[in-house]
Amino acid sequence: MGIVVQKYGGSSLADADAIKRVARRIVEVKKSGHDVVVAVSAMGDTTDDLLDLAAAVTPLPPARELDMLQSAGERISMALVAMAINDLGFTARSFTGSQAGVITDAQHGKAKIIDVTPGRVTQAIGEGHIVIVAGFQGVSQTTKEITTLGRGGSDTTAVALAAALDADVCEIYTDVDGVFTADPRIVPNARKLDKVSYEEMLELAACGAKILHLRCVEYGRRYDIPIHVRSSFSQLEGTWVSNDPKPGQEETTMEQPIIAGVAHDRSEAKITVVGVPDKVGEAARIFEALADAQINLDMIVQNISAAATSLTDISFTLPRTDGQTAMTALARIQGEVGYDKLLYDDKIGKVSLIGAGMRSHPGITSKFFGALASAGVNIGMISTSEIRISVVVDEASVDDAVRATHTAFDLDADEVEAVVYGGTGR
Amino acid sequence: MGIVVQKYGGSSLADADAIKRVARRIVEVKKSGHDVVVAVSAMGDTTDDLLDLAAAVTPLPPARELDMLQSAGERISMALVAMAINDLGFTARSFTGSQAGVITDAQHGKAKIIDVTPGRVTQAIGEGHIVIVAGFQGVSQTTKEITTLGRGGSDTTAVALAAALDADVCEIYTDVDGVFTADPRIVPNARKLDKVSYEEMLELAACGAKILHLRCVEYGRRYDIPIHVRSSFSQLEGTWVSNDPKPGQEETTMEQPIIAGVAHDRSEAKITVVGVPDKVGEAARIFEALADAQINLDMIVQNISAAATSLTDISFTLPRTDGQTAMTALARIQGEVGYDKLLYDDKIGKVSLIGAGMRSHPGITSKFFGALASAGVNIGMISTSEIRISVVVDEASVDDAVRATHTAFDLDADEVEAVVYGGTGR
Repeated sequence: MGIVVQKYGGSSLADADAIKRVARRIVEVKKSGHDVVVAVSAMGDTTDDLLDLAAAVTPLPPARELDMLQSAGERISMALVAMAINDLGFTARSFTGSQAGVITDAQHGKAKIIDVTPGRVTQAIGEGHIVIVAGFQGVSQTTKEITTLGRGGSDTTAVALAAALDADVCEIYTDVDGVFTADPRIVPNARKLDKVSYEEMLELAACGAKILHLRCVEYGRRYDIPIHVRSSFSQLEGTWVSNDPKPGQEETTMEQPIIAGVAHDRSEAKITVVGVPDKVGEAARIFEALADAQINLDMIVQNISAAATSLTDISFTLPRTDGQTAMTALARIQGEVGYDKLLYDDKIGKVSLIGAGMRSHPGITSKFFGALASAGVNIGMISTSEIRISVVVDEASVDDAVRATHTAFDLDADEVEAVVYGGTGR
Repeated sequence: MGIVVQKYGGSSLADADAIKRVARRIVEVKKSGHDVVVAVSAMGDTTDDLLDLAAAVTPLPPARELDMLQSAGERISMALVAMAINDLGFTARSFTGSQAGVITDAQHGKAKIIDVTPGRVTQAIGEGHIVIVAGFQGVSQTTKEITTLGRGGSDTTAVALAAALDADVCEIYTDVDGVFTADPRIVPNARKLDKVSYEEMLELAACGAKILHLRCVEYGRRYDIPIHVRSSFSQLEGTWVSNDPKPGQEETTMEQPIIAGVAHDRSEAKITVVGVPDKVGEAARIFEALADAQINLDMIVQNISAAATSLTDISFTLPRTDGQTAMTALARIQGEVGYDKLLYDDKIGKVSLIGAGMRSHPGITSKFFGALASAGVNIGMISTSEIRISVVVDEASVDDAVRATHTAFDLDADEVEAVVYGGTGR
């Protein structure tokens, strides 16, 4: 039997009772003959509490010290999980990210994993121990400093360990039953997906589905690690993310649904640069300024210029948290570029339809837009990939748009399946 | 200007405001031209909270994981102190015990420092940074595991760093103004000592004065590091522990007081083994059994055997927390040794008179015992060293005994000097 890597988030480790429940679950897997390596997040609100403390000390904490501070959170949860396992008659060893060989670059607060050298982990496995590893943290290769991986970090730790240990599966435990065809808080009869491809999951994650972070899925795809997303509050099968058929099942491509799901995102804002001279290099100058300000753009639309004026409008979406920075960067180049004015709108939302099957099925776009029209939803911007169509709509129309699309593509389940428990960020 | 090492305890780091106050104090020293290295304990009740969590998970946490858990406490406080220093326009780098090169043996929960290799600390000092080090923790030389140093650990970290860095002074910040001639909660007009020798401080610490731990003083004496015990809540000079005259003062041996202070201890119990056959080897068998049970004895008294019976009684004191273990170990050898019965008394207290001057001054003992008699205090057991006389009395008589002794040796100050703020264990 091979190695099973599991990851438990903060909501699964909220208190001593939750930790004991997680320990029982881990021990069951060990009993079934697998070696088990577990990545853990900080307990419940620990990270928020630590960040509150930092904010009370200084408005501008140095990134190095912020990482040192936050890394204490997983140290607490991993030691407690190891103790709880010990209490059940099994032995466990906890390791910090550094001890587990999670080597990162030196970007504090959003470090990237560049190598995993799990010598102490494999030794502990060889000695028969269950291994608990601090998620979300590592040590920088050049400076030997403690780093944290940023959002989705613990998931990424788990998948990276699974790849380094050549594990059979990476189980991501969360507070929902798996990946759904839409957010069950908006669409109560959304269906849980049994299986989704890495490609679809990447688009879902990029388009606002919060269940798995982009980096984790990218890592899984690169190293071909099957990811099983499931609830720590039930024994149900969750959603398998992989390019292979679900273990134990035949390939089911023939019956594969065209659409995997409908994602939505309310975290973006839209900026329109009005009256840009339609000359070579003007648009480039605008996007150069935004890149210099370290802003990641999402959708970009340039109108065809009105022939009479030779002026054009350029619109783009970006994270709302970057809105102020982007407006400042653009205001600074107004004289140079000579545009007319800037419009800022943060009352928008993005709705995306995702499915690998749409590649070969014409008519998806018209059906999508028809559903939106029937629901009285106005489309602002449009962008597409091979397996995705996204539209920007009024923030107030997002729920209606998601529901109408979900129904139009026959994604509704016969009865309500979903249970939503809460949510964590890490 | 040389290196100043400081140590701040948990009560000096209780919350964000306290941390900011400590940061201002650290920065003042840096401004005066010194390099500063600071050892910190965990904030306020953090350690107790973590231990409560562990107790909620399992009644018997493995020592390795308990150390991993507890070490998170200093990680939090050190990062926050570094942030607060940064907020004042200075740069600070925090280091875990392991990063700072605090190398220990592998005894989890009570590890001993066997080496300090502060390469990263000296490098950071060289780069102009203030250095914050996690107290109370290290890394084991052989197993590379996180260890904690047990009681008094953060003080010991500070003195060990001071020795390794060849610091000018090790300042131990606490919640009282220094070392007093007696516990100010019992003797309100106890006087703060300006200076005390290592030898006297060792006896004071061993006899119940909780202000500095024995190990810290031993370390200071071995490496001749002047220790300045002072309050983090005031700017007053505290007490210098060293064998040299206080810096800036002439040697004052001629005027050195005979008595440094009166210490008391309510943490011990007394066991009497009644009716031990007065034969060679019987006492040895008793103490062997206690040693096997890892029990540290304090005072030991054996009565002269009654000639008629050839039986003797052996009494000794030990930490109350070891009482049950000792009684069990002794009960197990009753058949072998053939003693009559065991008596257990935990309603005792120890009062000690300490002073390097008593070596050369006869009459100290009679004056001490006379004071106790006048106060109506009955003496149970007696033990002496060159610079100390200790007596065991009824627990209820301890306060009277301390006050009577303090007055008899003219230690009372003209007015009340002491302010006591609270207390921490670490």
